[in-house]
Amino acid sequence: MFDHPNNDPVLKLTEDQSWTLLERTQHGRLVGVVGGRPDIFPVNIAVRDRHVFFRTAPGTKLAEVAINDHVLIEADGILSDQAWSVVVRGSARLLQTSREIAVAETLDLRPWVPGPKEQFVEVTPAEITGRHFQFGPYRDAELGEGSEGG
Amino acid sequence: MFDHPNNDPVLKLTEDQSWTLLERTQHGRLVGVVGGRPDIFPVNIAVRDRHVFFRTAPGTKLAEVAINDHVLIEADGILSDQAWSVVVRGSARLLQTSREIAVAETLDLRPWVPGPKEQFVEVTPAEITGRHFQFGPYRDAELGEGSEGG
Repeated sequence: MFDHPNNDPVLKLTEDQSWTLLERTQHGRLVGVVGGRPDIFPVNIAVRDRHVFFRTAPGTKLAEVAINDHVLIEADGILSDQAWSVVVRGSARLLQTSREIAVAETLDLRPWVPGPKEQFVEVTPAEITGRHFQFGPYRDAELGEGSEGG
Repeated sequence: MFDHPNNDPVLKLTEDQSWTLLERTQHGRLVGVVGGRPDIFPVNIAVRDRHVFFRTAPGTKLAEVAINDHVLIEADGILSDQAWSVVVRGSARLLQTSREIAVAETLDLRPWVPGPKEQFVEVTPAEITGRHFQFGPYRDAELGEGSEGG
């Protein structure tokens, strides 16, 4: 799946590759900005039809950050010799109708902090980006300047 | 280390516990806001004297986000029955003097994307917070409203 041309240690993933990785991942992180301040929370995630879902409860700080027109969902996987990272940029909203909630309940999605009035949040993506990193003997090789990432 | 009083599934960690977890962790995520837009990057991290260090290269998007008065460093660990998450909120700056760079070079810190002009970034913490989550049979139990997190 991850063929790095020219032994470049960083491979920019296609949207399809990025979604595939995200669909196989149960844990991610929600990033939002409230009053100019960034915040980040670990969340369990599920993907359906290229939308990302997680759960929260009203009144929590997570809920405050989550319901936001500009959020990120990040997930990554790190091994000793390689790693990947996928970021979805989008807007988040609470699911409202009983029909959409019923669909979300089939996702087997658990919150990290259970509460009595959990709600589902749906992130509609504006953009998805992903990178795969190959760690190896060429890891200290010289690369061109200005390449993305770090 | 993680004794949850009253079977509360969420344990707020002390600063000492949070630093201990971070010191044992090699991978984290940098979050910054540029032009109101949040961004997130996976980074290798090291902790020394309760400051967080990572590497980047000039001209990268990571560098642009990193050198910032308001950044977060997040790290987490997730197992099937428990998880933890630690967030450092602080300001980031490039190390400048040969003395501080020499110290940072002892940290055995590798960037995910190597480059010819790597620099060290130091995050001076304003705040560290950590939580430990116990997943278990009480995971669906009713909790009080308004608890932090999700």
